Amino acid sequence: MKKSFVLLFSLVLSHLAFTQEALFNAADLKSPEINADKTVTFRFFAPKADSVFITGDFLPTMKVKSRFGLVDVPKPALMQKDAKGVWTFTSDALAPELYSYSFTVDGLRSIDPNNPFLNRDVATVTNIFIVGGPQADFYKVNDIPHGSVTRRWYDSPGLGIDRRVTIYTPPGYESSNATYPVLYLLHGAGGDEEAWIALGRTAQIMDNLIAQGKAKPMIVVMPNGNASQDAAPGEGNTGFYKPQFMAPRTMEGSYEAAFMDIVKFVEKSYRVNAKKESRAIAGLSMGGFHSMHISRFYPNTFDYVGLFSAAIMPREDATAKVYSNIDETLKVQKENGTKLYWIAIGKTDFLYQANVDFRKKLDGMGMKYEYVESEGGHIWRNWRVYLTQFVPKLFN
Amino acid sequence: MKKSFVLLFSLVLSHLAFTQEALFNAADLKSPEINADKTVTFRFFAPKADSVFITGDFLPTMKVKSRFGLVDVPKPALMQKDAKGVWTFTSDALAPELYSYSFTVDGLRSIDPNNPFLNRDVATVTNIFIVGGPQADFYKVNDIPHGSVTRRWYDSPGLGIDRRVTIYTPPGYESSNATYPVLYLLHGAGGDEEAWIALGRTAQIMDNLIAQGKAKPMIVVMPNGNASQDAAPGEGNTGFYKPQFMAPRTMEGSYEAAFMDIVKFVEKSYRVNAKKESRAIAGLSMGGFHSMHISRFYPNTFDYVGLFSAAIMPREDATAKVYSNIDETLKVQKENGTKLYWIAIGKTDFLYQANVDFRKKLDGMGMKYEYVESEGGHIWRNWRVYLTQFVPKLFN
Repeated sequence: MKKSFVLLFSLVLSHLAFTQEALFNAADLKSPEINADKTVTFRFFAPKADSVFITGDFLPTMKVKSRFGLVDVPKPALMQKDAKGVWTFTSDALAPELYSYSFTVDGLRSIDPNNPFLNRDVATVTNIFIVGGPQADFYKVNDIPHGSVTRRWYDSPGLGIDRRVTIYTPPGYESSNATYPVLYLLHGAGGDEEAWIALGRTAQIMDNLIAQGKAKPMIVVMPNGNASQDAAPGEGNTGFYKPQFMAPRTMEGSYEAAFMDIVKFVEKSYRVNAKKESRAIAGLSMGGFHSMHISRFYPNTFDYVGLFSAAIMPREDATAKVYSNIDETLKVQKENGTKLYWIAIGKTDFLYQANVDFRKKLDGMGMKYEYVESEGGHIWRNWRVYLTQFVPKLFN
Repeated sequence: MKKSFVLLFSLVLSHLAFTQEALFNAADLKSPEINADKTVTFRFFAPKADSVFITGDFLPTMKVKSRFGLVDVPKPALMQKDAKGVWTFTSDALAPELYSYSFTVDGLRSIDPNNPFLNRDVATVTNIFIVGGPQADFYKVNDIPHGSVTRRWYDSPGLGIDRRVTIYTPPGYESSNATYPVLYLLHGAGGDEEAWIALGRTAQIMDNLIAQGKAKPMIVVMPNGNASQDAAPGEGNTGFYKPQFMAPRTMEGSYEAAFMDIVKFVEKSYRVNAKKESRAIAGLSMGGFHSMHISRFYPNTFDYVGLFSAAIMPREDATAKVYSNIDETLKVQKENGTKLYWIAIGKTDFLYQANVDFRKKLDGMGMKYEYVESEGGHIWRNWRVYLTQFVPKLFN
């Protein structure tokens, strides 16, 4: 027994933990397995199931009727069952990317019990994996210097509550005396201060861009954009509850008006260059809407603005002060000048036309911007790519 | 359309995300629902299933035969199906606690699709919920000042790699000039630098104890105790892979010998009182083993030692220098003196006898310690409780 203490200890522990599962014959399979030829094999043990489908964002799409017309969704693929009850599916060779997937077992959605890596998007958790290669290597943890990621709380007098925020500081921040520029990076509807760091792989993207000399070392501040929340679901005073797409008091102006609470907190708490030329603001979807409104409501504050698939539409219904005088404040922002006003959207995004209209408005008033049109729609894959494209343009 | 922009935006977004799931009739149910009488109702939509069981750590246990003898496991409870295909189970009234559970659908383990709150324990993700009340209120995020939680990387010359560490700093740390004491808090086999902060609710426990005046403000350092890992699975250079109970080079001495790399990093990087009287080390299971060995190998370094369900057994098989001269170094540690040597274990823990034997050794050499014997076994419920009991005794 002496010789095998570690083994015995391991056996007892694993036995205690898995006794229940062993009762139900859970199988220890390798899934997903990324093969040398970049195909990916998925395995799921379900001997009694009549059908197991896999669905994921790497599969061919199909058109589905919806109340908003035809939409593209991945076409679930039927997996093949072997004599032992293991269902298997192997994908085509996949391009480098971070992908997500789930199984559907006799009609019920299931995560992959052999893959503990999950992302939560609003209220749904989904398995993820990475196929390595050029763009996807930005999403990996590589053997390079790493920044720090801190969850901390700041006081927001404008919203009347303490609020949680996620902050990335670049490698070397703690041991340096330098001041740094700041990117404020805003999430979309249904997101929170965990969205960019998890789904967006912000820390990995920043570490890699900085290590490759493609981005200046900078601080990235990822606040919670839902004015009614102190923190992400489960991380705040409300406890555990099911997240929803639009929290109360969303997109009604309070958040934008109180945004300087965050800027003041950051500039008081970190060694930053507290100047317009060292401030950037960008966001996806609702966060793009927020970035557009905040940067023009405080029209001499940010030299860099990024609108990723921005939810920019006319808001004649909006009554908050922050939404009044949009054209006038945009004009002031234009006259004050920005070093970069960057707009990116996918060709099939449901907000495509809204962005066409917004660019027409900017063209009409002579406001300069850079424009990137990508494939695809309103998806995290695009937002990760936009971040890797936008960040190298900052603070040069 | 103008009036309902936010609603429309929300509908489109939620529709895009849930189209696939809608195809498979996933139901939007409230689960778990904590009722006023502290019973808890679970719901799961599975119209075609023949059986749905719930299992969780709040259920009565049953004896199951194993190669280690009879072990107690929760007895799965059959849920009841209604005409709409919704399976329901309501528990007895539950004592305040953080609980975990999963479903078993026709023999297959499933998480609760209506509950996005999950903990990963080694390779298994499990749903969690909290029933509020005295002890469990330490595990909640309450409306009190909050500390910060940072994931950062330190250089470990002793292990030859950069490694990730999770660090809690107390409320007010950033705006103060004070120095703070430090608790080094170590995880068990299969854990990593995410274990204490997630499964152990360390940030919530510390915030609540400090706000109630029951604990001194302190820094809590949660390192990765697996000498072969740079970081938790998925957070390091190895990428996504299935975690295992005992990583390579576990409990073979390297980690303990290189531990001062962590102490040096912390004392260089934070405003701490770098003295024995301001250092505590504690850990659960393998982390208790580590705490015992580190505190005697560096026998004049820690004034507070906590062994939670510690994996302390004779190690005649161990050849590393750190495991030689155990009795002699314990004697030196005793002579140098500690302010607190604290041992806690559950009555049904499989390490109970090993801890009896270890206490006999301490008694034999006249080394003083405090001893707490709790109900239950080798489970996170006990380790959270031990943390709330141990921390108030520190640095007084």
